[in-house]
Amino acid sequence: MKISSIVYFCLAMLPLSGAAQQGNLTQYVKPIIGTARMGHTFPGATVPFGAVQLSPDTDTIPYAVNGRYNGDVYKYCAGYQYDDPTIVGFSHTHFSGTGHADLGDILVMPTQGKVQLNPGTADRPQDGYRSPYAHANETAAANYYSVLLDKHKIKAELTTTTRVGIHRYTFPKSDASHLIVDLTAGIYNYDGKNVWTVVRVLNDSTLVGYKQTNGWARTKTVYFAIKTSKPFKNYGSKYEDGKAVYGGFWRKFDQTDNFPDLAAHNIKMHLDFETSEGEDIILKVALSPVSMKNALQNMAVEAPHWDFNGYVKAGQQAWEQELRKIQVDMLNQEDLVNFYTAMYHASMMPTIYMDTNGEYKGLDQEVHKADGFTNYTSFSLWDTFRAFHPLMNLINPSRNADMVASMLAHYDQSALKMLPIWSHYANDNWCMSGYHSVSVVVDAILKGGYKGDAEAALAACVQTANARKYEGIGPYIDLGYVPDELSGTSVSNTLEYAYDDWCIAQLAQKLGKQDIYATFSKRAENWRNLYDASIGFMRPKDSKGVFRAKFDVLDTHGQGFIEGNTWNYSLYVPHQPVEMMQVMGGAKRLENYLDSLFTMELPDKYFEHTEDITRDGIIGNYVHGNEPSHHVAYLYNITKSPYKTQARVRQIIRNQYHNGHDGLGGNDDCGQMSAWYLFSALGFYPVAPGEDAYWIGSPLVKSASINLENGQVLRVVAKNQSDKNVYVKSVSFNGKEINNFRLSYEAIKNGGDLVYEMSNKPKK
Amino acid sequence: MKISSIVYFCLAMLPLSGAAQQGNLTQYVKPIIGTARMGHTFPGATVPFGAVQLSPDTDTIPYAVNGRYNGDVYKYCAGYQYDDPTIVGFSHTHFSGTGHADLGDILVMPTQGKVQLNPGTADRPQDGYRSPYAHANETAAANYYSVLLDKHKIKAELTTTTRVGIHRYTFPKSDASHLIVDLTAGIYNYDGKNVWTVVRVLNDSTLVGYKQTNGWARTKTVYFAIKTSKPFKNYGSKYEDGKAVYGGFWRKFDQTDNFPDLAAHNIKMHLDFETSEGEDIILKVALSPVSMKNALQNMAVEAPHWDFNGYVKAGQQAWEQELRKIQVDMLNQEDLVNFYTAMYHASMMPTIYMDTNGEYKGLDQEVHKADGFTNYTSFSLWDTFRAFHPLMNLINPSRNADMVASMLAHYDQSALKMLPIWSHYANDNWCMSGYHSVSVVVDAILKGGYKGDAEAALAACVQTANARKYEGIGPYIDLGYVPDELSGTSVSNTLEYAYDDWCIAQLAQKLGKQDIYATFSKRAENWRNLYDASIGFMRPKDSKGVFRAKFDVLDTHGQGFIEGNTWNYSLYVPHQPVEMMQVMGGAKRLENYLDSLFTMELPDKYFEHTEDITRDGIIGNYVHGNEPSHHVAYLYNITKSPYKTQARVRQIIRNQYHNGHDGLGGNDDCGQMSAWYLFSALGFYPVAPGEDAYWIGSPLVKSASINLENGQVLRVVAKNQSDKNVYVKSVSFNGKEINNFRLSYEAIKNGGDLVYEMSNKPKK
Repeated sequence: MKISSIVYFCLAMLPLSGAAQQGNLTQYVKPIIGTARMGHTFPGATVPFGAVQLSPDTDTIPYAVNGRYNGDVYKYCAGYQYDDPTIVGFSHTHFSGTGHADLGDILVMPTQGKVQLNPGTADRPQDGYRSPYAHANETAAANYYSVLLDKHKIKAELTTTTRVGIHRYTFPKSDASHLIVDLTAGIYNYDGKNVWTVVRVLNDSTLVGYKQTNGWARTKTVYFAIKTSKPFKNYGSKYEDGKAVYGGFWRKFDQTDNFPDLAAHNIKMHLDFETSEGEDIILKVALSPVSMKNALQNMAVEAPHWDFNGYVKAGQQAWEQELRKIQVDMLNQEDLVNFYTAMYHASMMPTIYMDTNGEYKGLDQEVHKADGFTNYTSFSLWDTFRAFHPLMNLINPSRNADMVASMLAHYDQSALKMLPIWSHYANDNWCMSGYHSVSVVVDAILKGGYKGDAEAALAACVQTANARKYEGIGPYIDLGYVPDELSGTSVSNTLEYAYDDWCIAQLAQKLGKQDIYATFSKRAENWRNLYDASIGFMRPKDSKGVFRAKFDVLDTHGQGFIEGNTWNYSLYVPHQPVEMMQVMGGAKRLENYLDSLFTMELPDKYFEHTEDITRDGIIGNYVHGNEPSHHVAYLYNITKSPYKTQARVRQIIRNQYHNGHDGLGGNDDCGQMSAWYLFSALGFYPVAPGEDAYWIGSPLVKSASINLENGQVLRVVAKNQSDKNVYVKSVSFNGKEINNFRLSYEAIKNGGDLVYEMSNKPKK
Repeated sequence: MKISSIVYFCLAMLPLSGAAQQGNLTQYVKPIIGTARMGHTFPGATVPFGAVQLSPDTDTIPYAVNGRYNGDVYKYCAGYQYDDPTIVGFSHTHFSGTGHADLGDILVMPTQGKVQLNPGTADRPQDGYRSPYAHANETAAANYYSVLLDKHKIKAELTTTTRVGIHRYTFPKSDASHLIVDLTAGIYNYDGKNVWTVVRVLNDSTLVGYKQTNGWARTKTVYFAIKTSKPFKNYGSKYEDGKAVYGGFWRKFDQTDNFPDLAAHNIKMHLDFETSEGEDIILKVALSPVSMKNALQNMAVEAPHWDFNGYVKAGQQAWEQELRKIQVDMLNQEDLVNFYTAMYHASMMPTIYMDTNGEYKGLDQEVHKADGFTNYTSFSLWDTFRAFHPLMNLINPSRNADMVASMLAHYDQSALKMLPIWSHYANDNWCMSGYHSVSVVVDAILKGGYKGDAEAALAACVQTANARKYEGIGPYIDLGYVPDELSGTSVSNTLEYAYDDWCIAQLAQKLGKQDIYATFSKRAENWRNLYDASIGFMRPKDSKGVFRAKFDVLDTHGQGFIEGNTWNYSLYVPHQPVEMMQVMGGAKRLENYLDSLFTMELPDKYFEHTEDITRDGIIGNYVHGNEPSHHVAYLYNITKSPYKTQARVRQIIRNQYHNGHDGLGGNDDCGQMSAWYLFSALGFYPVAPGEDAYWIGSPLVKSASINLENGQVLRVVAKNQSDKNVYVKSVSFNGKEINNFRLSYEAIKNGGDLVYEMSNKPKK
């Protein structure tokens, strides 16, 4: 019996109650959620935080055409768009939920018939190796993906280990079956993105090679090793850049066929087989950041056998173990799927970036051996510092400590002497604003997860915050804000720097570094400098101290902010919300502000300027699909109406997270959107990471057991939970009532009972 | 006192006698020899077999323009042409004497005034950083080169260690002094040859980086580390490929100035200084085949201090030690210079390709650690198997054993399972014909120098000789010759394969592998298959067994040979010369043939087709400037007139090797031309490496002491030596007369006395 049938059977037999089945939480994972529109998730196979994300790509359109940005490429950040009619192939690296992209490396496609080395187009798949497919013939589960490739009559199944993608292709009878290995394919591709490619055929069933690209990661090399379960009878290649057919100066070989030593800008290979009806060929593709031999070693260590189903099962067991960190009862089946799919999406990135022997490529482009930690890459920190890393601190503190160690290694390797901004694959692409590494580092140290050298970590944070040449930091230090004329995102930078500075101050205080504490506590107040009391909003100010005259409070673009208008961003003072409220005019003013935010009508012309989300991703003018507002619903807790937090949180959960392929209203952003869901569903949220306080919201779970790494259990119970009972009548921890809507990590870190009494009546 | 003055003084004070001065042989090295016309030597600094060859480049013209080969580039195989009026800069890697090229990596040029990042042109140096210079202000000695850069008024001095180039620049007073580091410059450059470049500025006096190219070496990366003796006050870069100004997707930095983390296709840097009048700035540039950190480590190990003169001295001591392996008395001063410059040119390549920690990049593009040997690269084997490696077996057997170990490592790393053909920098460019690695491997084992696994070495030789897909080997095995229609060089391939096969047979015999011995002994006869008795020459034959109808015995091009016409190549049966003579009609016929070869008139139209040599490089139709005839003058020894060998050898020495910058008639070919000179000057020559026989010629030395590695001395004395006494009246070894004009390595390997009695009368 094929595993796909097993998985399909499992999904079909989901229990009708909302109680998670002990020992089979993985069944609730629905990777297809978010694969339509702007969720930018991928449906393929991976294990928790795995280095390989083996997933179908439905198009590989170029990032730019003739030097001009091609807006359509944005759809393909994760390679797959649910509504597309064809599959190009299966590549091994994918971001989950990003709003810009790269990767899609080492694309493999099984075909039969004439060898075609071009993908063809979606409307003319017959011109290339791509194939139409139907969702009816597609299965996506944790660490298992399957689809029937209609054109080739080949069933494709995918699974993974941490560093190895395993493909099983069931061929029809054919004397011309092929596996295409296209090193030119890629996500956010462009002509010339491939810097160099190498393929070495070691024997009739083994290839190694690498692909070096200049994309979002400026200098990125993915090394690979491929083994086939059946020897290929023939193989060939074709270089299509016009000049790379290269046999040394003297062309002593025919390099088109069966030539085992290829190097060129753009290699495409075909491996040829004769297949009988229903014959399976299994392909193992191991990746390494360091070398081809490490890729081979990774395969030897992680994927020594050919039992495809065994790999599926092992990976699903790893998922089960990961998901079991939170066991929940929910109101219904859909919520269970949402919850565990959110767990799944929040257990993918950052990804492991280290070989089984401990070697990895550092930011300095050198090979390093990780000393006492597992190295991770792909840190989308502007997103993930908010709830993802705090979630890790709660349920995965050791893993989070390794992530912090990876960030500090990045710092050590940095010629700029900066912690990562948005780093992936031994590069920083410096995407988005702030230096939010410091939030992650500080929170991990203060919560006790990171046990490394705290003083060195503080020094790295301080050095990063003093990188004067980076994005206005110099003038920010001198003036107390980033001046409008120096940056297109002067206000969001200033607000986020101020929060990050506050984080640094907290760590400095803990370590007794009074100078640093004083300096950064002062800097933490810098948000005040851009508040324009005359209009009641944050507003760009030039270096002479003059607020920008022409200013649109609804517009997201060109107003001094990134992915947010001032309506949303003016609330971004998570570390000093009460002070912010006072500046804004007090509790009532803030409540009114929040009421307006959630209820106002955002004209279409402004929505069009709002990035990365669909129309569903906003409530009024509250933009949940982008991150700057993720703490906003919780701010009612400091007004006189905390019940509005409860109502809004429940509304956002219900409004923004659905079971379908179009279930996400915006980019999942490497698990941040999912982490928001998970915290909120458990009834609390880390408004200001670095502060020892989760803010109370409205739980969605009926009950939950959070299995802490120390073996203790934090139990959450929501009495009288129902779709109508969204209000918290009372909440207690270990029998002691919580009156301030705050929950401390210190209190819960050894487990206990968090009990909510739910009601359909707001407590005013 | 500047070292340049010391060196100049030494050269000026050369003793007038021809007796080499004990302890100062290095004074006779004149690196300028061969730097004009087609010698393709370089005048810069290097140590014996050093990884760094730091030398001026007088032009960096492209290999191809608009996809068409630019013939002029050939002049710049070694970067320098004596007659050129300008110097572009000083780069760190150069081949010595090749007829095709690559390298010229990491070009540095000191300038002052406006920053110019383009080289400009020879006729308009003011448009770029290059400078006019005068030979009167130039000094080239072993491991020391100096020149005054007229435009910049900067004196440049160069020296090296094995892996580090050291520059001393004496600046005028200027607030705008610069060091240009141009990673786009290179030898045999073309647009797009640079695959990727990286520079990381670690502090105000340290840079690391790498340059990855796709040239004659398909995938080559040179890593470097640079330190300056004085901190630069500013630095900057410019990317000129139009798209590589790259700061990640978000351009958060000004990357033009003082940005320490650069990566692009084509980086050029300027380091800026303020200098006082006569101020020296020293620059150390370490190379590595593996990594930037290894380059830094190489510098730390080899070049820890800033004593420029100390490096000059240490390198010259290394040269002294190398040159002292043969101490000679010559007839005159010029001969001493020729002799020791030939020693110098025969002690440069292959070059060490391994870091101080033993790591090197293998042919498989993996990092390896050399286990018990020093790894070498740049094997120009079609040239060097003839006399260079036999010379190494005599005076440098351990080093030669390491070269053999390097070739066997290459084999182990080869996806093609072939020993190197023409390999450099972890690549094979498969240049020229034959598989002459086997000659080098076999000769080193049979002479006892290589002490590794002989059976494994034999297996590598056999496997290489059975690479059916390589350059006609398959049909060669099947038919006994390479058919005309399958290869443009079918005859030279067949003849050279037959010789190589004979070598394999010799090793097989020694190891008792009778099957292999029988198979390859039979293949060794294959030269017979292409001898056309009807015309008395080797001639292309098609696969049906029909000789080519239209055939020109004088033409070098298009007749089935490489770098030789059939007049020269028909004699290429070094392993079975007597059998060849018999096939050709006996001793008298061969003598007549040789007489004709040396005396006939080669019409200009044929000379124009003769590659790689000037008109001086030929005697009659004998082409000394190319290698296939290097054994030919010795063939009279098997006729009735060995005295003609003696006359011709002396003639060739006098005709082909001169003291001037235009002293070489053809490419020095990585020391092969020089090794021919050295053997011949000592009075014997290895006609068929793999056979234990040197053939006696006519010594040029008056006496020589060959200091063998085992501590023994092989003394050569030529009694009555004079310019007229070119004939050998008698020759004896250890008192025993030699009558067969053969000298065995077995006999001489423990030293002894080789005594020639010279005469002005031929012994008929």
